[in-house]
Amino acid sequence: MTEAVSSPATPLYLRIAENVTRQVASGALRDGDRVPSLRQISRQMRVSMTTALQAYLWLENRGYLESKPQSGFYVRKPFSTLIPEPQYETRKSAPAEITTDMVLSEVIEAANKPSDISFGVASAHPDLFPTRKLNLILRRILRENPHHSARYDFGAEPLRRQIARRTLSMGCALSPGDVTVTSGCLEAINLGLRAVTRPGDVIAVESPTYFGILGSAASLSLKVLEIPTHPREGMDLEQLERAIRGHRVKACITMTNCQNPLGYIVPDAAKKALVELTARHDIPIIEDDVYGDLAYSGLRPKTLKAFDQKDLVLLCSSFSKVLSPGYRIGWIAAGRFNEEVKRLKLLTSVATPSLSQLAIAGFLESGGYERHLKKMQSTFARQAEQIRNAIARYFPEGTRISRPAGGHMLWVELPPKVNAMKLYRAALNEHIGILPGPLFSATGRYQNHIRINSGSGWSPEQERAVVTLGRLCERAR
Amino acid sequence: MTEAVSSPATPLYLRIAENVTRQVASGALRDGDRVPSLRQISRQMRVSMTTALQAYLWLENRGYLESKPQSGFYVRKPFSTLIPEPQYETRKSAPAEITTDMVLSEVIEAANKPSDISFGVASAHPDLFPTRKLNLILRRILRENPHHSARYDFGAEPLRRQIARRTLSMGCALSPGDVTVTSGCLEAINLGLRAVTRPGDVIAVESPTYFGILGSAASLSLKVLEIPTHPREGMDLEQLERAIRGHRVKACITMTNCQNPLGYIVPDAAKKALVELTARHDIPIIEDDVYGDLAYSGLRPKTLKAFDQKDLVLLCSSFSKVLSPGYRIGWIAAGRFNEEVKRLKLLTSVATPSLSQLAIAGFLESGGYERHLKKMQSTFARQAEQIRNAIARYFPEGTRISRPAGGHMLWVELPPKVNAMKLYRAALNEHIGILPGPLFSATGRYQNHIRINSGSGWSPEQERAVVTLGRLCERAR
Repeated sequence: MTEAVSSPATPLYLRIAENVTRQVASGALRDGDRVPSLRQISRQMRVSMTTALQAYLWLENRGYLESKPQSGFYVRKPFSTLIPEPQYETRKSAPAEITTDMVLSEVIEAANKPSDISFGVASAHPDLFPTRKLNLILRRILRENPHHSARYDFGAEPLRRQIARRTLSMGCALSPGDVTVTSGCLEAINLGLRAVTRPGDVIAVESPTYFGILGSAASLSLKVLEIPTHPREGMDLEQLERAIRGHRVKACITMTNCQNPLGYIVPDAAKKALVELTARHDIPIIEDDVYGDLAYSGLRPKTLKAFDQKDLVLLCSSFSKVLSPGYRIGWIAAGRFNEEVKRLKLLTSVATPSLSQLAIAGFLESGGYERHLKKMQSTFARQAEQIRNAIARYFPEGTRISRPAGGHMLWVELPPKVNAMKLYRAALNEHIGILPGPLFSATGRYQNHIRINSGSGWSPEQERAVVTLGRLCERAR
Repeated sequence: MTEAVSSPATPLYLRIAENVTRQVASGALRDGDRVPSLRQISRQMRVSMTTALQAYLWLENRGYLESKPQSGFYVRKPFSTLIPEPQYETRKSAPAEITTDMVLSEVIEAANKPSDISFGVASAHPDLFPTRKLNLILRRILRENPHHSARYDFGAEPLRRQIARRTLSMGCALSPGDVTVTSGCLEAINLGLRAVTRPGDVIAVESPTYFGILGSAASLSLKVLEIPTHPREGMDLEQLERAIRGHRVKACITMTNCQNPLGYIVPDAAKKALVELTARHDIPIIEDDVYGDLAYSGLRPKTLKAFDQKDLVLLCSSFSKVLSPGYRIGWIAAGRFNEEVKRLKLLTSVATPSLSQLAIAGFLESGGYERHLKKMQSTFARQAEQIRNAIARYFPEGTRISRPAGGHMLWVELPPKVNAMKLYRAALNEHIGILPGPLFSATGRYQNHIRINSGSGWSPEQERAVVTLGRLCERAR
């Protein structure tokens, strides 16, 4: 099932890693086998020891290999990369109006009940967030400025500075003035969409895509065109170009890093090609990079903004997934649409509270952010693998699971006859939250898909929940 | 200039108060005169001593009377109620698309510079807010729950409970579940508008109306129909009915308490009539009650929601004007559109940070809120009167000024030849912020009007600014 996805732009270490996974897929390497030593790899592939190590650490992070002290690297068992990935759905579709039914709110509200096994909403275990440290910073700010009170502006200066600095690692170098602080990434996306479209316009989206994007589009009376999306390479650019020519697409909205729900990271070459394609047609891209800091490899992937020659990319992100879901602090760097976005922000919610902005800026200034990210990245990589393995074991024959490169989402394709909505409701009865596949499409696709949030940890209770889900699949046929 | 606006539904004390102002207008009572004693009023008008006192305190709060210890109440000098009010603009208009130009953001950004004399944006002096106490509550919450972290929901339970309790004083009795917490009142209005309209729809608004409403309407591709609005009685209901019949109006958006910019409080009878009129046509009302707690009389005026038999009123408010501008905590009780509003909130910004919600709930629970409001109300009443007097003295002959019953805004009609945009720009050069009248209309009205924020206090520096503005008026002809 493991396909070669290397392209000339793929970094060397990733090509080495893919060689290893291909050998396992072909049977040349089996569970528990010792893989070639770093020295052997270095000699055979003519790469430095560092590159070889980088490849193995990446494989280890993703749960493909395990290292044994004084002995070397071994193929982990069960080697869950053998679980087939979801099929690449290449069906084309016409621009679709989104039915604004109530399923979404119901699903989210239900999934949010504290007693649930939360495979539903995209939440991470509370212990993973540096809440205590953030709260200490907040208390310090309040102690030092007992009269602190926010002004109306487009973002607290210290936070905008920190964000601008961090954009270096994303391959672009923004200035503080390029950044508008928002109430989470979703507000950023909404503002971006409103800045570049009018009601009735057509926008191109991935398929499957994050339901929040579909919801925003629906609430803004936009039509969406679902572009076939490869489970590891992202949007099909040929199809996108055909769509642009055929349907007067006004904007493209995409998540190239740790996509929700598929988890892929688009290779740089494909990112560049995407930006160039849309730029040729003067089409703005709204880039949702909310999981961009959560690549399992530990390497910060580039954003589309890094390839943005014409200033047409509206880069949106947030600290909700990495520092604090409760602060609701996101941001947008809207390029040539900056002024329009600021105007819309003013008209929509005036300003974002400054206190939490200052707390996050304080955290970023303190220097512990990279270390914190490393912990999150390896935790999410491990948990994703644990849940993948459990699904592979307990779900019916024919189940396929995505192979995420970051974030904390798994996209599960169930055997064709299993109905995701039925499964969702049956699971809810057992106090297990999952998200049904049809939420991720405007055209009723993914009837036999579900999204599993793997961010909440892995415990015997959750393993039992996976067992239950597997059993319910049989019934939901 | 003082007209009788009494109706059978006007409370007795207000009718007494109006008798007094009428006597001054007619010359029967002059500046510095002693007015009849409470006992005399009580006998003459056959009312209780309490009612008589209520009338005089109301007049005192508004700056019409002053009390001298051991002596009684006197007509204050200068008796600024003699300054004529802005004219009642009865011109009709057709539904208008709003030009989404950049003036608004420019104006707001400019008006927000800390060095300005801030007669521009609707801000109050920082000392008026209980910032220190709120910050102390916040620190206590963080100390007691160092791991406090928000969940995704539609408002923190303690805050929703406190809001529901306070709705009793607004003449309605909502339950916590009726309330959705938002990022300020403007988000509430936006969500309300989106819940009840589609792009291209026509909505009815007051004229002049708060520019934020026009901006929201523009950003949602709505057309606005400006209904002639009396400077103290609010929207003309006959005109509104004619508009509804003629233009398929889909929603009405109105501020009946301490209207921005006119400052009036609509009498209860007219509120009831407005709700009944729109209900007959099944038209939802979005009620902006953001200044509702700031009536100078100290009596909490009723909301339209109090008369809402068909659950068609979407009541929007906020704590930004009374507790903390920086927390950005507002709310909406959307009646029959509650579920739709929650869905849109989820799709727009997911949730509102819970920490500041809990701090505000803590403040309301502590019991100091009413006392705090009293202080704000009397401060704003005094400041409005001080600035009205200064404008009357230093502005050119023919200037007219609104007579607000609450809030901290003055609407100033300049002599016909003074151009408000010119005046605005000239004032900005002198570091004085004001808002030009055309911002408050979608059809280019109010070319010779300005809005003056009277919330920032009154000092020699500000008096000098009024002198300067008066001088600039001469030049802006």
